[in-house]
Amino acid sequence: MIDKSLIDYRVYLVLDPDLCADFGMVETAVAAAQAGAGLVQLRAPGWKKKAMYECALALKEKLAALNVPLIIDDHVDVAMAVQADGIHVGQKDLPVDVVRKLVGPDMIVGLSINSLDELKQMDPDRVDYIGVGPVFRTSTKKDAASPIGLKGLEAIVRASQVPAVGIGGIKACHMGEVAATGAKGAAVVSAICGTRDPALATEALLSAWQAR
Amino acid sequence: MIDKSLIDYRVYLVLDPDLCADFGMVETAVAAAQAGAGLVQLRAPGWKKKAMYECALALKEKLAALNVPLIIDDHVDVAMAVQADGIHVGQKDLPVDVVRKLVGPDMIVGLSINSLDELKQMDPDRVDYIGVGPVFRTSTKKDAASPIGLKGLEAIVRASQVPAVGIGGIKACHMGEVAATGAKGAAVVSAICGTRDPALATEALLSAWQAR
Repeated sequence: MIDKSLIDYRVYLVLDPDLCADFGMVETAVAAAQAGAGLVQLRAPGWKKKAMYECALALKEKLAALNVPLIIDDHVDVAMAVQADGIHVGQKDLPVDVVRKLVGPDMIVGLSINSLDELKQMDPDRVDYIGVGPVFRTSTKKDAASPIGLKGLEAIVRASQVPAVGIGGIKACHMGEVAATGAKGAAVVSAICGTRDPALATEALLSAWQAR
Repeated sequence: MIDKSLIDYRVYLVLDPDLCADFGMVETAVAAAQAGAGLVQLRAPGWKKKAMYECALALKEKLAALNVPLIIDDHVDVAMAVQADGIHVGQKDLPVDVVRKLVGPDMIVGLSINSLDELKQMDPDRVDYIGVGPVFRTSTKKDAASPIGLKGLEAIVRASQVPAVGIGGIKACHMGEVAATGAKGAAVVSAICGTRDPALATEALLSAWQAR
């Protein structure tokens, strides 16, 4: 079981099947985890569940050996089936009180937050972290809301009772500014997935965070 | 809890959000259930889970009062969250052994079967019924396989150790032939959803079944 107080949110990899098509989902996750990514999320909204289940099983095995938590996007059933470390839901997915009831107290529950209003409506006792954004414009999430910018991120981070990570279009060059908002880290997709060297890309993100 | 030996499979309504857009999902389900549909499935592959959860909650309340089981398509988490009576999965969804482990022994588990090969690979101890098809050409399931016809249906029905229902393009005029294969019923979408009078449509299907 993951000690929630020890989660390293600085570089939180969100996998993307299209961008990872060449290098591989598991291969990208392992390379990033070995290079210092502290969390890995399996997000594959276009996949059927058997494919997602099988990928999650493979990820779970590899990431557990590296002591890096595996988070499943949206599908609580897949998360429960593979005994993932966590589940991440958006505002249009299952409500967090329902999620928490299904998964119990130990599983990490993350929630996407786009505004202070959404944060106010959230029960912080049921959520372990929030993903705040999109900070910048992003092309990897097709139904993403309008960017909230670094100021929008900072306002939500400061109001949040739970750890917050920024998400949406964040590259190595932004890491210092994201860290300065008080966020615990940055969730990234295209800054790692589909790059020529996912390990090197992860190291660059971590260095940029530490150099703030 | 549903007594599985008493399930009336004859007319099994599968809801379709597009076809039910005018009359309403819950309204269609209630009208059909009152007219004799023995099972109702919520199938909404294009919906996000919050919408599916809310619709499932509303259906559960109405159908429980009519003693008609509610089956959820694909999403085991939604089925568990609303304490649905059953879950239906396809070959590309979570494997039935995984599903059965998640939902326990009491929930109805249905599986889509397209061929004798798929039936042979199925563990009948984990599955309560199978949906066999597509029997005829259908427009309501976009990724449907090639039709197996009444002969294909009959071959699978005769080989199955669990109750089987035909699915795919079945209208009132086919009900006699479907019944003659030994199937316990027919799962229908467009024969009820989107018709001018879903209750009357259900009655017509039931009458046709009984008149075989």
